[in-house]
Amino acid sequence: MTTANDARTRLVESMADLLWERGYVGTSPSAVLNRAGVGQGSLYHHFTGKADLAVAGIHRNADTLTQAAREALDGPGTAYERLERFLLRDRDVLRGCRIGRMTQDPDVFTDDLLRQPVAEALAGVRKTIAAVIEQGQARGEFVRGLAPDDLAATILSTLQGGYVLARAELDEQQFHAAVRGLLALLRGSVTAP
Amino acid sequence: MTTANDARTRLVESMADLLWERGYVGTSPSAVLNRAGVGQGSLYHHFTGKADLAVAGIHRNADTLTQAAREALDGPGTAYERLERFLLRDRDVLRGCRIGRMTQDPDVFTDDLLRQPVAEALAGVRKTIAAVIEQGQARGEFVRGLAPDDLAATILSTLQGGYVLARAELDEQQFHAAVRGLLALLRGSVTAP
Repeated sequence: MTTANDARTRLVESMADLLWERGYVGTSPSAVLNRAGVGQGSLYHHFTGKADLAVAGIHRNADTLTQAAREALDGPGTAYERLERFLLRDRDVLRGCRIGRMTQDPDVFTDDLLRQPVAEALAGVRKTIAAVIEQGQARGEFVRGLAPDDLAATILSTLQGGYVLARAELDEQQFHAAVRGLLALLRGSVTAP
Repeated sequence: MTTANDARTRLVESMADLLWERGYVGTSPSAVLNRAGVGQGSLYHHFTGKADLAVAGIHRNADTLTQAAREALDGPGTAYERLERFLLRDRDVLRGCRIGRMTQDPDVFTDDLLRQPVAEALAGVRKTIAAVIEQGQARGEFVRGLAPDDLAATILSTLQGGYVLARAELDEQQFHAAVRGLLALLRGSVTAP
């Protein structure tokens, strides 16, 4: 039935947004129902409860993150250009990362069903970054002394930590400064043409 | 009175630990009272409520962070050696940063009294890192093309984001990989002796 599917979609979208805004611990079932505009019956028709709906919400947020990262990283250009496009892509900095923030949620951290989609999304982006660096090294665009897996972790950490700094000071510029500093370091690793 | 001061100290220490473990939203007043082993009367004798006690708890965690960072950064050595000592200092990686994690707490992010000590602690560490880089540049140890403020934001972000990656995958190695990648990039910015 269209109506039932619509209610399910609205529940997942509302939970995904609330997880980004308030986290798992900070989101009550009634807040999700209010935002989705559906009754409690719908929630328990489609899901076993808050945790089950949250798994669907995290998967939705993970898909959004993964797709945005791939679009920036998979396009044309040298390895540096692709990393730069990924690092400089438009972001709602003060909202933070819809996936990274989940790691600070005590109930997500201790529940494998909730943590697993978070782990997979971040590992996926990390591996995509590492593949770009490996390609750059194979093409002679990037110095070979750097371990792609280490550098990929550094790049993704700079973004995740940049959100932390920006949110602490309510100042987007902290995020942008962290990215500028990283890009300056990365330019030092581009082989001379 | 000694007893009253002991109760106050135990309340602040218990709140500081719970903020690190569960965040502000995830910590109930009764959880703090249980951990501190004091009654509700003590809480309201020393503090106006949960938020007031949390401000004291965040200040305590901020002092711990600031002192550990200064010890590593203020010691002897070249700029690179001091940054390396700071980046490689012993950390309880999977617990994350007791201050950085506060930025993901929805009620801390929106309450200036709670957010301010978080902002000051991270800005303080950032400025200490920037001062080390400036000194390194003045002594000719570090290439001058890099903006100290940007690089300081990158360094602190790598740590904060490294915690995020490690907690997502329940794997300390993600943190250590991010730090190794950053150190490799920084070595490329050390001027030849």
